[in-house]
Amino acid sequence: MTDTLATGATIGILGGGQLGRMLSVAAARLGFRTHIFEPGANPPAADVAHHVTTAGYDDIDALKAFANAVDVVTYEFENIPTEALDVIETIRTIHPNREALRTSQDRLTEKTFLEGLDLRVAPFADIASAADLEDAMQTIGTPSILKTRRFGYDGKGQSRLLSADDAPTALEDMAGSPAVLEGFVNFTSEVSVIAARSPSGEVACFDPGENVHRDGILHTTTVPANLSASLRMDAVLMAAKILNALDYVGVLGVELFVTPQGFIVNEIAPRVHNSGHWTQNGCAIDQFEQHIRAIAGWPLGDGSRYADVVMENLIGDDMDRVPELAKQRDTALHLYGKTDVKAGRKMGHVNIIKR
Amino acid sequence: MTDTLATGATIGILGGGQLGRMLSVAAARLGFRTHIFEPGANPPAADVAHHVTTAGYDDIDALKAFANAVDVVTYEFENIPTEALDVIETIRTIHPNREALRTSQDRLTEKTFLEGLDLRVAPFADIASAADLEDAMQTIGTPSILKTRRFGYDGKGQSRLLSADDAPTALEDMAGSPAVLEGFVNFTSEVSVIAARSPSGEVACFDPGENVHRDGILHTTTVPANLSASLRMDAVLMAAKILNALDYVGVLGVELFVTPQGFIVNEIAPRVHNSGHWTQNGCAIDQFEQHIRAIAGWPLGDGSRYADVVMENLIGDDMDRVPELAKQRDTALHLYGKTDVKAGRKMGHVNIIKR
Repeated sequence: MTDTLATGATIGILGGGQLGRMLSVAAARLGFRTHIFEPGANPPAADVAHHVTTAGYDDIDALKAFANAVDVVTYEFENIPTEALDVIETIRTIHPNREALRTSQDRLTEKTFLEGLDLRVAPFADIASAADLEDAMQTIGTPSILKTRRFGYDGKGQSRLLSADDAPTALEDMAGSPAVLEGFVNFTSEVSVIAARSPSGEVACFDPGENVHRDGILHTTTVPANLSASLRMDAVLMAAKILNALDYVGVLGVELFVTPQGFIVNEIAPRVHNSGHWTQNGCAIDQFEQHIRAIAGWPLGDGSRYADVVMENLIGDDMDRVPELAKQRDTALHLYGKTDVKAGRKMGHVNIIKR
Repeated sequence: MTDTLATGATIGILGGGQLGRMLSVAAARLGFRTHIFEPGANPPAADVAHHVTTAGYDDIDALKAFANAVDVVTYEFENIPTEALDVIETIRTIHPNREALRTSQDRLTEKTFLEGLDLRVAPFADIASAADLEDAMQTIGTPSILKTRRFGYDGKGQSRLLSADDAPTALEDMAGSPAVLEGFVNFTSEVSVIAARSPSGEVACFDPGENVHRDGILHTTTVPANLSASLRMDAVLMAAKILNALDYVGVLGVELFVTPQGFIVNEIAPRVHNSGHWTQNGCAIDQFEQHIRAIAGWPLGDGSRYADVVMENLIGDDMDRVPELAKQRDTALHLYGKTDVKAGRKMGHVNIIKR
């Protein structure tokens, strides 16, 4: 059980990127302060946080001081070292919980968990060796994708197999990391559901958004997604099932492939999600505030959609388009304050309101 | 002319209250940092600012260091000592400009300025002595209101005269401060226009909102205001006239009385305004971002209204209603992080979206 945080309470956030930045703003809107823990200097979230600790995840003293200085701890990314969480957890509650993190940190654990809930996932196999891969190729075949079990994001740590000949190169790409082979899913589209659960078990879902990727990175999310009413309901029920099974507190992102046979769960992320950024300009309560409400023990907010929105990520050189975008009607810019423009780096996003 | 500020630039804000807090959030959304200058400890804006200077407006060294650390200076309240502005202005541009401040800091100067633009104001007279008041009562009569020329806000520094008998008490209330006597205006409602002007002279206005006060403090603002199309247009043209006359850069609040004979200008505020808070949940670009855009030399944003909104201030004990408000549909809470609840203190506001 989480106590209800009062005005002026401090929320600790592990990770100081753009998600931590937007969580900080949402926390402030509800009268809370944030304290960011981040190894890198000048993280985006520092611009809007009350306090920042610059230290590594192996700095036990810094972790203890951080945990003691805050009222509850959350995170903006799932790849936090277990040892750091062990230190924090002796002092403060972490939301979402360790089980949610453990499950989503490892593709194999995640897929096994989802199958256990009778949710459909792509055919998969644990790959620890060349022999494993050879065996798995017999059942899963090609096309398929070899993915590292851990630490993958934005298409990193993935290698496609179009034929059995690609196996040696794919295995080499894994650089010895434990991996899973995933069968190729012939999907018509990808949607995601951003869902939240409170400590009392209340669940709220935002409308599913339809995602388009480019070069392995999310390019746009469009709401409403092109889904039948029954699929829309399925998506929400699946998200709720996952949240309940994990006794989850906070916001969870669920990526779903749409196939003629229904949904296949691609992956889950135990945090606010890039595909939920549209909520900032389409709902009274956005995903960031919903997460803060959940972990603060507040009632979940009204996340019903009042506008159709297309969210587009601004990546690398897309920043050159900002002067034009700034003039465009019905267009809300959200920049992350990053001064170092790099190819593939998420610099901001834009929500275009359709009416 | 203002240079266009680039991502990562720092905006200096004089004053660390809730307006500075919400300006900081808007600045972050456009990729800027903020630096707050505020004499009081732990101001609301500090929770979301990149940097805070805690120093008095008479601390020349602190003012110089502040000005040197930022790229442009703005403010959240109009009663900044002239000497502080003199120091800053030798180092950095201040938006809105000194003329706008000078005009709005003094009720007499303001009313004279507005009359010079052929805008209607309440009958008024300069009151420096008991004799002045006696003279003025002859022409302006009762009911009327005696107001300090400077430093009044939220009904403070005001005294009503229902009959000539009230004159001595009213004068005493001024405690020797220069004052103006204002004739009572028989108005049907009060509306305000939040308008913005960019360095290139571009002007944008938000829809007028209708204000209801309680105990001299703004209670609610409702959009759309109950105004004819022609009055709506008048309001916008009047705001534009004021902005152009002052060669203004930033957001200006204009309070107007609605009378059977048209508008009477009550007062202008050279800053974002409480009656513009509805824009946070009714427009793609809110008043805070519009102000930041203007002073950063960006194009003004799209402030067209996409929803009807009632903004209600949460004052003092209204904070007890937060748990209920948090559950309410279509309701966006905006709390200022103030832990010290006092009667008459603005603690937050709520935007209720009507659909």
